Amino acid sequence: MRKKVGFIGLGIMGTPMVSHLLHAGYEVMVSDLNQAAVVALVEKGALAGENPASIAAWSDFIITMLPDTPDVKKVVLGEKGIIEGAHEGLYYADMSTIAPTGAIEVIDALSEKGVKCLDAPVSGGQAGAEGASLSIMVGGEQSVFDEFLPIFTVLGKTITFCGAKGSGQIVKACNQIQVAMNFVGLAEALVLGTKAGVDPAVIVKVLRGGYAQTRVMDVRGPKMIRRDFTPGFKSRFHYKDLNIIMKTALDYGVPLPVTSVVHELFAAMMAKGNGELDHSGILTVIEDLAGVKVQTKEE
Amino acid sequence: MRKKVGFIGLGIMGTPMVSHLLHAGYEVMVSDLNQAAVVALVEKGALAGENPASIAAWSDFIITMLPDTPDVKKVVLGEKGIIEGAHEGLYYADMSTIAPTGAIEVIDALSEKGVKCLDAPVSGGQAGAEGASLSIMVGGEQSVFDEFLPIFTVLGKTITFCGAKGSGQIVKACNQIQVAMNFVGLAEALVLGTKAGVDPAVIVKVLRGGYAQTRVMDVRGPKMIRRDFTPGFKSRFHYKDLNIIMKTALDYGVPLPVTSVVHELFAAMMAKGNGELDHSGILTVIEDLAGVKVQTKEE
Repeated sequence: MRKKVGFIGLGIMGTPMVSHLLHAGYEVMVSDLNQAAVVALVEKGALAGENPASIAAWSDFIITMLPDTPDVKKVVLGEKGIIEGAHEGLYYADMSTIAPTGAIEVIDALSEKGVKCLDAPVSGGQAGAEGASLSIMVGGEQSVFDEFLPIFTVLGKTITFCGAKGSGQIVKACNQIQVAMNFVGLAEALVLGTKAGVDPAVIVKVLRGGYAQTRVMDVRGPKMIRRDFTPGFKSRFHYKDLNIIMKTALDYGVPLPVTSVVHELFAAMMAKGNGELDHSGILTVIEDLAGVKVQTKEE
Repeated sequence: MRKKVGFIGLGIMGTPMVSHLLHAGYEVMVSDLNQAAVVALVEKGALAGENPASIAAWSDFIITMLPDTPDVKKVVLGEKGIIEGAHEGLYYADMSTIAPTGAIEVIDALSEKGVKCLDAPVSGGQAGAEGASLSIMVGGEQSVFDEFLPIFTVLGKTITFCGAKGSGQIVKACNQIQVAMNFVGLAEALVLGTKAGVDPAVIVKVLRGGYAQTRVMDVRGPKMIRRDFTPGFKSRFHYKDLNIIMKTALDYGVPLPVTSVVHELFAAMMAKGNGELDHSGILTVIEDLAGVKVQTKEE
């Protein structure tokens, strides 16, 4: 018998993920506020769901892939939400990046209805979703993880069980702290070096070759010094993640002296209307402070 | 004819560097305030120099490898300093990590005496010095770089010409910004994750496997989560480098909003008497703020 998978949220991430599930032979019922996205997937063999409640009632597994915490809460706990179609034997994974405390709230509410739940945020962005190479960070019970694993394997490459409910979101938050820090470190290095007269291409080359190396630098460093800030991963999404991180730090009582400044710099990037740039565009904020433009002299 | 190399500064870096030069067939004359270090190298075939002036008078090439800017200024410009033994045809490289403006001051003074000068700080630490695998960042004139290259090749693996005088120090400063940032990012991630109940080994594993990866994390992450802060590179040296960075930012008029906070965190590490720990020990500062200890549950 083919497994029935409900999938809510058909953005740049959800749409290719559903395609992979269809391709792997799952029956998939989808919904999204954007009807064009639903139609596109129905043409590929998906079923159009009426609402989250009816999709949940139909599904063996149900996945949400939504922008932020309030969206997930609304789709799960709101009117005609997943909770109204909850049934014994239903498995649920929220693959959105949301606040860990929000994830736990949703999991607790569904668990009371007999639903087995996971938080399973991803990294790897649009390219990872399209290439089925996402990194998936999973919190919840090991047995639920084991049931979901065949589906995750269709969607991603590195799938890690991180611990109890909420742990997937915590690890995702940790990931986004480090990625943001790596960009800001490179930005401050490039701005200082440029104003002191060094070709930023030399800086990227030397730093990549040694202890300062980061994957961020490998992937985006050469683009940054050519002022190519096409996403990639839009800075407004990283800003959203940084808001989740600061909220989480507040929830757990953890001062984050450096991440908090990084958060403000991303806020400045938003204030300047640069939310559509790649997150490497945080360079422009540091440049503006110093009154200098980073650009390599190399061809 | 064997080339005569003067070498001043026989600490954990200078001593193995001189050994490599002797092994490569150079005649080396050394000096250091620590006579035991001089004796140890004389036993290996080095000559004991009387003072920087006399060493310079004897040398074809002269190298300094000293703790900080004032030390270099004293050895070069002070009484019986290199400048008093300066002669046409002498090549000089300062391989210490010092302020770029200090490097330029020393280079300008020696250049007036006909000495051809480079700033050539290194990264790779004690292990890099011992393994002759240092990364060497060089500022100055290309022709002087070319003359010095055979010597650098004996001492290091990655040798990069960075541009005009002072550029080597600038790139080293950029390197130390990024390395410090990578450690602080990991520290804040580990502290947040630990206080939220996630095993830090999971955090290191997931972050290393994706876009958040840094070499710092590869090398020291597994040690940090076992509370192993044996150096490596002592935090007091990274603090010294951060002081150089902040001074350089002031000299060139570059606000560094995030590095400045990182600098303060290292100052806190010094205030607690932890300057002898590896720089990864910056974790302890973030832990103290949050009242939590990061330690993996894994064996």
